[in-house]
Amino acid sequence: MNLDIAKPYLLFLGDERDRVYAKTAAGLAQWDGENCVGQLRLSADTVDVGLEDLTLDEARIRGARTVVLGIVVIGGQIPPATMSVLCEALDKGLDVAAGMHDRLSDISELREAAARSGARIIDVRVPPLSLPVGTGARRAGKRLLTMGTDCALGKKYTALALTREMTARGLDVDFRATGQTGILLAGSGIPIDAVVADFLSGAVEMVSPIADPGHWDVIEGQGSLFHPGYAAVTMGLLTGSQPDAFVVCTDATRTHMAGWPDFLLPTIDEVIELTILIGKRANPAIRCVGISVNTSSLPPHERSDYRLALAAQYGVPCGDPLDGGLGEIVSEVIDAF
Amino acid sequence: MNLDIAKPYLLFLGDERDRVYAKTAAGLAQWDGENCVGQLRLSADTVDVGLEDLTLDEARIRGARTVVLGIVVIGGQIPPATMSVLCEALDKGLDVAAGMHDRLSDISELREAAARSGARIIDVRVPPLSLPVGTGARRAGKRLLTMGTDCALGKKYTALALTREMTARGLDVDFRATGQTGILLAGSGIPIDAVVADFLSGAVEMVSPIADPGHWDVIEGQGSLFHPGYAAVTMGLLTGSQPDAFVVCTDATRTHMAGWPDFLLPTIDEVIELTILIGKRANPAIRCVGISVNTSSLPPHERSDYRLALAAQYGVPCGDPLDGGLGEIVSEVIDAF
Repeated sequence: MNLDIAKPYLLFLGDERDRVYAKTAAGLAQWDGENCVGQLRLSADTVDVGLEDLTLDEARIRGARTVVLGIVVIGGQIPPATMSVLCEALDKGLDVAAGMHDRLSDISELREAAARSGARIIDVRVPPLSLPVGTGARRAGKRLLTMGTDCALGKKYTALALTREMTARGLDVDFRATGQTGILLAGSGIPIDAVVADFLSGAVEMVSPIADPGHWDVIEGQGSLFHPGYAAVTMGLLTGSQPDAFVVCTDATRTHMAGWPDFLLPTIDEVIELTILIGKRANPAIRCVGISVNTSSLPPHERSDYRLALAAQYGVPCGDPLDGGLGEIVSEVIDAF
Repeated sequence: MNLDIAKPYLLFLGDERDRVYAKTAAGLAQWDGENCVGQLRLSADTVDVGLEDLTLDEARIRGARTVVLGIVVIGGQIPPATMSVLCEALDKGLDVAAGMHDRLSDISELREAAARSGARIIDVRVPPLSLPVGTGARRAGKRLLTMGTDCALGKKYTALALTREMTARGLDVDFRATGQTGILLAGSGIPIDAVVADFLSGAVEMVSPIADPGHWDVIEGQGSLFHPGYAAVTMGLLTGSQPDAFVVCTDATRTHMAGWPDFLLPTIDEVIELTILIGKRANPAIRCVGISVNTSSLPPHERSDYRLALAAQYGVPCGDPLDGGLGEIVSEVIDAF
């Protein structure tokens, strides 16, 4: 589960114009900005993650070791213009890392470029070769899982913010990565969505192993139980992580599933109900300890009131990892366990 | 999705003593017995699927073309005694087919034996290379999915019995295979449990494609939404098949999950509740049309009363595919749609 990726990174955004699909780059810029020398964008309207725009040569001068392809493409197909930059990076001796289902190392053009220069291709979304079937056996230690109303609205940020705050309060805690960005940040983890279905909950059991009774694993959630494409991934996470606690992650203004415009977002109530109905099989004590809401689409002066209203409605603390933080949710975790 | 496997089969049971893990052999003997020349068992207490015991040479004389490894091993490891029979079969020119996660064609000993004789190794549990992410888009045609309280208690038999009876009543219907035995029977299908998590519901959408409005796909279910190892597989099936109707499959006397003795079987109520809660997202009209109960562990004179009691309790017809059949459930399907 441990990787060997050389930092600092240059974040490569191709020509992706939709922020939703640039979440790997945005996550690395947000949570590991000190290890990113800049960003490379192919057009003026490509997503901007707030770093300095650099060419490959400029990035090399700043010390970049690895070009991270920081976008996710549905189906994993890499556009031609993006492909040629990856080739050029390898030719210049920079390592290239990516987390799509289609492996860069399966593309002969890239393999040949890497062979010429000696640079490395690192496919983050490659699960371990041998995984067990989930046993469902109760494991010592405590676990918190982030559950979403949809994809790409803050499950990873929530887990990272909770981990930071719990660490600051003196708790014994580990962030457990289950997706490509989390793995690039943490340097370890299993890309759950690339695991073969029969071994999904087994992989999650491996990601959050038996631990001291007071130890917390904060497990990065994926997808949504209500998602037409990815519900099975979420099901494997919930079954395998046997969480004591979960936090519902949502977005203040999103009404429909991102990229699936015919599907309404489920309500927070529906997520809590279904998570408990399924999760109680592996852990009868499972409970919702908070709501994490992405309020970036609201005017700044409305955000706090919005969160207070949600907290009152559901009877649990509500926070935004990027606006005020998740301190109250951590207090709830400490009080409840 | 179409395979090319030569019948008739010799069913090879290794030294498996637990019927639960011999369901591939038992299913082929039950539903395609006319294409099986016999069975090969390594010891007297190996599971007996009711065919004549034959050696490899005897099977060849009877015309066998393919030796089917008819057992499932958790984790997919093949015992040594079983392995040597597979080698011998290939050496004698018989094809060998299996449906475990570990591919026979990855084992050099078998590959070499096949190369020597020209016989073929057929790994049924290999999904198509390129699968889409599920769209959740509504597809024309009607779909029925079998949902279980557990693994290995009749979801495939139920789907096959329903397909036969619906065909007999003049309905336009296809059995859709999602597991190795179903695929060996039907000659087509996708082994859903071998699909990478992100593409699970997409694979199921491919298995049950758009069809005439009056056409029925009867889709073979897998696992259980309540299973500690395999719940994610079931979730992908339910999400991708967007069923109009489902039949709950259970066993009259099983109290705990087979192979997971710490997990109680869920109740039929729980299966209906959770299936509808999840399934209504993709198809708001989803409904339970019957209960299929394996009553083989009850005394014959108690079976009918047991089913009548279940039918009264849940308000839907109840049948056993191998004892009296599922005619009443098919009548319910015809009445309801």
